[in-house]
Amino acid sequence: MKIDDVDFFYLSMPEVTTDADGSQDALVVRVVAGGRVGWGECEASPLVSIAAYVTPMSHGVCRPVRDSVLGETIDKPDDIRRIAAKVAYNSMDLLQAPHTWSGIEMALWDLLGKARGEPVYKLLGIERPARKTPYASRLFGNSPDETLAGARESRAAGFRAVKFGWGPFGTGPVQDDVDHLDAAREGLGEDGILLVDAGQIWIDDVEAAALRLPALERNRTVWLEEPFHAGALDAYAALGARTDKLKIAGGEAAHDVFMARHLIDFGKVGFIQIDCGRIGGIGPARQVAEYAAERGVTYVNHTFTTHLALSASLQPYADLASDTICEFPVTPRQLAIDLTTNHLKLDSNGELSLPEEPGLGIDVSPEALAKYRVDVEIKVNGKSLFKSPA
Amino acid sequence: MKIDDVDFFYLSMPEVTTDADGSQDALVVRVVAGGRVGWGECEASPLVSIAAYVTPMSHGVCRPVRDSVLGETIDKPDDIRRIAAKVAYNSMDLLQAPHTWSGIEMALWDLLGKARGEPVYKLLGIERPARKTPYASRLFGNSPDETLAGARESRAAGFRAVKFGWGPFGTGPVQDDVDHLDAAREGLGEDGILLVDAGQIWIDDVEAAALRLPALERNRTVWLEEPFHAGALDAYAALGARTDKLKIAGGEAAHDVFMARHLIDFGKVGFIQIDCGRIGGIGPARQVAEYAAERGVTYVNHTFTTHLALSASLQPYADLASDTICEFPVTPRQLAIDLTTNHLKLDSNGELSLPEEPGLGIDVSPEALAKYRVDVEIKVNGKSLFKSPA
Repeated sequence: MKIDDVDFFYLSMPEVTTDADGSQDALVVRVVAGGRVGWGECEASPLVSIAAYVTPMSHGVCRPVRDSVLGETIDKPDDIRRIAAKVAYNSMDLLQAPHTWSGIEMALWDLLGKARGEPVYKLLGIERPARKTPYASRLFGNSPDETLAGARESRAAGFRAVKFGWGPFGTGPVQDDVDHLDAAREGLGEDGILLVDAGQIWIDDVEAAALRLPALERNRTVWLEEPFHAGALDAYAALGARTDKLKIAGGEAAHDVFMARHLIDFGKVGFIQIDCGRIGGIGPARQVAEYAAERGVTYVNHTFTTHLALSASLQPYADLASDTICEFPVTPRQLAIDLTTNHLKLDSNGELSLPEEPGLGIDVSPEALAKYRVDVEIKVNGKSLFKSPA
Repeated sequence: MKIDDVDFFYLSMPEVTTDADGSQDALVVRVVAGGRVGWGECEASPLVSIAAYVTPMSHGVCRPVRDSVLGETIDKPDDIRRIAAKVAYNSMDLLQAPHTWSGIEMALWDLLGKARGEPVYKLLGIERPARKTPYASRLFGNSPDETLAGARESRAAGFRAVKFGWGPFGTGPVQDDVDHLDAAREGLGEDGILLVDAGQIWIDDVEAAALRLPALERNRTVWLEEPFHAGALDAYAALGARTDKLKIAGGEAAHDVFMARHLIDFGKVGFIQIDCGRIGGIGPARQVAEYAAERGVTYVNHTFTTHLALSASLQPYADLASDTICEFPVTPRQLAIDLTTNHLKLDSNGELSLPEEPGLGIDVSPEALAKYRVDVEIKVNGKSLFKSPA
């Protein structure tokens, strides 16, 4: 099959707020090859990722992503890897390229799975996907009382594991954070699994983060996520060495396999969290999952948007039966719900299974593409380089 | 002073080829604050960096660069650092942001220097900048004869040090590379300084790179630059451990200080090469220069475009008298020559000094901004987010 078309659908809620909620907009990718269609999704800044697809070439290794994709042959998984290597080399100096490519890559797996009548995990060599235990991902409340209520709400919705993040956490006095952590534990009950996401708030200040360790430990936090800037590997390792009761998590910002490996090798994280919409798609995520498994590091998906992205993000570690936990966006904006006509559902044990349908097993809603459509036009020297599909 | 305006000028040669030559287009930034003007330059993919400046917000930490810059106060160097931290946090999930910010940051230093009547290096605390020995940066020839001729040409033009890169190097049989290296040495003469840039051609294949070591050593190559993908730290360290006659160089892709530090700490490079147009500007580059100096690693600028970028790129290590070598674009496209009305010139010893004029000491030509202008318009939902300045 030859890649004939790649289309980008920029979707957005009517209002986008400063909440740390990535479901407020979306960049959905449709790839057409051999008369078949595949769907994928890029994480973050739709306009910029579109620009990286169509931008005029700056020089031989700063080419638009388009130049390495259109017209390529796609008949087998190795073709996806070959095109990925081509993009990485030809767009070496185009920083945004991995985010753009990620959605295309997902769509290519989806398309290939549909062409073969097999789910993507089978194309990755996985026979029987393991069930995952989703954790509810939510923001800290504005007050400890709100955090308490949120924890109870998530438990009532059937989630045993809940991750609290962002909001006021880390921005004020230590005691405020202690109160939020105590409230979260109280709301979760004794057997709830507590995860905490600090959203890089301490940048590289190990001491500031360490001040929160006693309350994190006392409340039996399983992981502390992104205490620091994604590149502050020394700080990750130093904080991890200060506790044997919880593990440090990170990795969502990785835009190539190397960055994820550095967090494992030098940052000594215990959980590696990969966003398929950033790292270059499913193939590189699978590489990280294998690398982590060999080193006793637990792989977790990072997904805060739609169930298209969710299905893609669960494929790379579907066979890792001991890596049971998975991120599950619990309270996304309506756009993320509406985008797909089917959704991954919790079973009676509160567990998730991957779809058995071909490809990613998720159908995109044409109505949602129309309803949330953002109309983009990019013109260079009078020539239209991009216009949102009708 | 309040930052009132930030304008982007996308410039391009009429024809852009696949040569690994970054001078074929440019993204020039003009900042206006307190009635004063500063100029800077972003490296690579102008359209994408413009998009990162104006893109609609995706969520609280995926904001357009603009939101963290316009209206900010700029009276002292610490203000630049403060705005840089704001951009880094608010645009955490916007991958292209560091490239966009780099040009703005440079322009802020230029503006601040002009406001104080001091060159930028003085604002960095540097009293007397050291002279640098520029190396001529050029592509390998298509044949060893062309490489030989190129080496002779650069020597005749007064350069003792010449860097050859890209072209056929690393793409064919080992013997081809050996022939090019022998030709380069022959053309440079016994006392010429030979540098080689492999342009990431071996990705992470240490053995493939190591096959070239004997010829690199025999021809007294000072450094082998970017043998691997910028993130393949293990490969950098492994290759470096295979030779004590030459050093490994890298770093141009670093888009934050952490990445440069990782190349030093884990990649064990002997030369760290920083592009001010990518790493976030002059401030972070200065941090890397200091970090490298403490560890016995030599800092070198990475500059392949205009003398505006060249002046900016020399400021961060102007006081490191032992780090004498600097990159100097010898055969840039006409756009890069025309962009500035003054240029850094080699003195009679073939050495370069920084301008003593306030700011970056380089004047941008209004004629060049008009002549090479690329007209860009970005519209979102019918609203013009960006239009090239007239």
